[in-house]
Amino acid sequence: MGSADDHVLTLNSMNPNVIELQYAVRGPIVVRATEIENELKAGAKKPFTRVVKANIGDCHATGQKPVTFIRQVLALCTYPDLLNSDGFPEDVKARARKILDGCKGGSLGSYSESAGLLAIRKDIAAYIEERDGYPSDPKNIVMCTGASDGIKSVMSLLLTAKSGKERAGIMIPIPQYPLYSATIAEFGAYPIPYYLNEATGWSLDVSELERAISEARPNCLPRAIVVINPGNPTGQVLTKENIQEVIKFAKREKLFLMADEVYQHNVYAAGSKFFSFKQVLMELGSPYNQMELASFMSASKGFMGECGYRGGYAEVINLLPDVYAQYQKSITVKLCPPVSGQAVIDCVVNPPKLGEPSYELFKKEKETVLAQLKEKAEFVSQLFNSLEGISCNQVMGAMYAFPCVQMPEKAIEAAKAAGQTPDSFYCFALLEETGICTVPGSGFRQVPGTFHFRTTILPQMDELKAVLMKFKDFHVDFLAKYK
Amino acid sequence: MGSADDHVLTLNSMNPNVIELQYAVRGPIVVRATEIENELKAGAKKPFTRVVKANIGDCHATGQKPVTFIRQVLALCTYPDLLNSDGFPEDVKARARKILDGCKGGSLGSYSESAGLLAIRKDIAAYIEERDGYPSDPKNIVMCTGASDGIKSVMSLLLTAKSGKERAGIMIPIPQYPLYSATIAEFGAYPIPYYLNEATGWSLDVSELERAISEARPNCLPRAIVVINPGNPTGQVLTKENIQEVIKFAKREKLFLMADEVYQHNVYAAGSKFFSFKQVLMELGSPYNQMELASFMSASKGFMGECGYRGGYAEVINLLPDVYAQYQKSITVKLCPPVSGQAVIDCVVNPPKLGEPSYELFKKEKETVLAQLKEKAEFVSQLFNSLEGISCNQVMGAMYAFPCVQMPEKAIEAAKAAGQTPDSFYCFALLEETGICTVPGSGFRQVPGTFHFRTTILPQMDELKAVLMKFKDFHVDFLAKYK
Repeated sequence: MGSADDHVLTLNSMNPNVIELQYAVRGPIVVRATEIENELKAGAKKPFTRVVKANIGDCHATGQKPVTFIRQVLALCTYPDLLNSDGFPEDVKARARKILDGCKGGSLGSYSESAGLLAIRKDIAAYIEERDGYPSDPKNIVMCTGASDGIKSVMSLLLTAKSGKERAGIMIPIPQYPLYSATIAEFGAYPIPYYLNEATGWSLDVSELERAISEARPNCLPRAIVVINPGNPTGQVLTKENIQEVIKFAKREKLFLMADEVYQHNVYAAGSKFFSFKQVLMELGSPYNQMELASFMSASKGFMGECGYRGGYAEVINLLPDVYAQYQKSITVKLCPPVSGQAVIDCVVNPPKLGEPSYELFKKEKETVLAQLKEKAEFVSQLFNSLEGISCNQVMGAMYAFPCVQMPEKAIEAAKAAGQTPDSFYCFALLEETGICTVPGSGFRQVPGTFHFRTTILPQMDELKAVLMKFKDFHVDFLAKYK
Repeated sequence: MGSADDHVLTLNSMNPNVIELQYAVRGPIVVRATEIENELKAGAKKPFTRVVKANIGDCHATGQKPVTFIRQVLALCTYPDLLNSDGFPEDVKARARKILDGCKGGSLGSYSESAGLLAIRKDIAAYIEERDGYPSDPKNIVMCTGASDGIKSVMSLLLTAKSGKERAGIMIPIPQYPLYSATIAEFGAYPIPYYLNEATGWSLDVSELERAISEARPNCLPRAIVVINPGNPTGQVLTKENIQEVIKFAKREKLFLMADEVYQHNVYAAGSKFFSFKQVLMELGSPYNQMELASFMSASKGFMGECGYRGGYAEVINLLPDVYAQYQKSITVKLCPPVSGQAVIDCVVNPPKLGEPSYELFKKEKETVLAQLKEKAEFVSQLFNSLEGISCNQVMGAMYAFPCVQMPEKAIEAAKAAGQTPDSFYCFALLEETGICTVPGSGFRQVPGTFHFRTTILPQMDELKAVLMKFKDFHVDFLAKYK
């Protein structure tokens, strides 16, 4: 009855790549956090009354309010009878009509083109042109179900369907966002880790790229380099010069450029600015401006934080025409990305303009969210750095801090005894004692012998302060306990 | 400048599985149809004024109206200020509140659990229990971005990451919905085609399953059988006895059951009824009721036709606990399916009840759509059968007809001269002369030497009649021309 012998799928017979993949952002510690939530609901007594999910960049879950313009446009697209209501500004109505005009049958419920509605791709291209000062072609825009889906589709093109030395190698930063390692594992590709330099603010050093690719060459065929800018989990923002170096390295090594730029609106540090890979590559001129590049963007981050709508897009340039045709064909199998998520993207890339009725409110809502994030970014790194045994680089951008914990020798031994890595041991203890759910650094990878965790900076300021005070007490006790 | 030598990706160096995959529903004929639409817009003179896209089951695109209850609930979830409006019934408001209560931060913009919101999975399980008369556990429900996404996730578990005789073999019906062949190609798995019997109403004969698996065994490791019921593109509806036979065959051969049941609301033929694989397997009792089964459902078909929202779910039963854990882990990488699509599903599986304010309108809208589809199903097959050289099985269910064309010898020669398959030649001629876009049978595969095309039955009745009159004239001319 139900023994392994009866089953088609067992751990031994199922896809080993699925067993291999790990996605720490929703890993074991999050499973435990959910269990604790249920224990609390069932009346269990704990040193805290609720779990704080600082494990995931889930903006609205932590109290950020949706942007009014976005939701008004979506509501009208969803239920067009509201176009006759007096309760909505004219620019909202005009935008909803424009989106519905692009939908077959005037309904968000019809399939769009597999690359997304053309009217919206035109708005995206216009946004990119204005951002970069270089042309963007709607034909090169491919909308997707969140950036993750777009990243998988592009990475899929790069696979070789071969093993050993001919396996596709993908360079990824360490620490990295675990979508990359998970997708590489799922695809049976070969990860080529390059380390960001924590001592110099998570800088991306070309000498390290060279070391990494040289070591990997005997084991794979290097095909692409992933750069996350602004960084996740590291929060660094690359300078234009640094991006130039990476582009030149990729050219020398004949690598496809994959630029994860989903945090392009999230830059806080004074003097820092977001430069897109596309812009820098264009500025460099020939031959760099003919390099293959995919840049990814999302509706889930920035100031809008509309994670649940699963909106995203890629701009993919300089593909050979027959490869472009294969790429376009490959996405048709998925039919299309969610059309409501596409509508969110349209509102983000083509916001209300000065003089339009929704302009002032939109501007205020956007600036408030970004100003609060900036304040929180500063507060979080300052607090971490004020504690003994913790150091934290400045959170220049994105939505996370990735502090380094000097782990006491006795804590390392206790972790070993518990069968955990020291960073997991630390994060699980933090969760059990304070209800704060973070992600151990091992989920993003880190220099061996160093220990980190990732926390979002998303909770509202009052809550964030309270959370960090609890964190501080925990950390001081932890150090004392394992001194 | 832009030569293949400079590029990372060329047809020779890119993933060969991507080149291999084909998805005819959005294939070359659809590309041509879109070109023709643009030519018409640019003022070109054609024997027709618009293109009729009968290639894809895109309900709202062909004039079907969204169900009011679904869209009202979605509008309120999207823009909760509307909860204070007098313009919406109380049951709509209650449903929207219930869905938002399940969303973190009360927003559709936060991520859900990767398997979907628990409150909605409970409603799905209740729907399945009521449908089948057997328990359903919300833990076994995994929501997805349309059924396609769910099918890929389950099929991924079955891969072996090996080649040759150890490659995973997946049994698929011929004709089939090309998502299956495309996904098998993308995954590098081995398709095991079994033919449905056109002469007996596309029946599924176990002797043919046995032939197919015997022939495939030297080339692969058979792992799963896909059954599409009601059938796409064939429109057949399986009897309970037939499903029992398939289940017993799968048990003998140790195959995972993949039941594509997205058309479960679309049954038209007198005396026909939808039976789920889950129900039949449970009725058979031990050992069948312990078999691994995945059943797929979608928000895109049925009476709702909400394709653009990309809602879907799978019920996956009888996995070993450690395989279940791996499956759950594998979907976390995608974060979550679109939450607005999840809300659509909730309205479908838990519709307004008798006595609630939205009940009568919902019932009327649902029944009207299904009655019209039934009328169109009958009309289409009757018309095809009235024509010389065409035969068409009864459209018992789903949304398509898949008629067989007796291709004149001269037409076969002309197709050969044009470098096309005869069915493509026929469908392209139909498109160029009438503007009607169908899909050649070769996109779904067919018995060699037979020629079919797939057309949806979705256009509104008046348009459908006009379309079929044009089709009739085309077909008569075609036969005369190649006599």
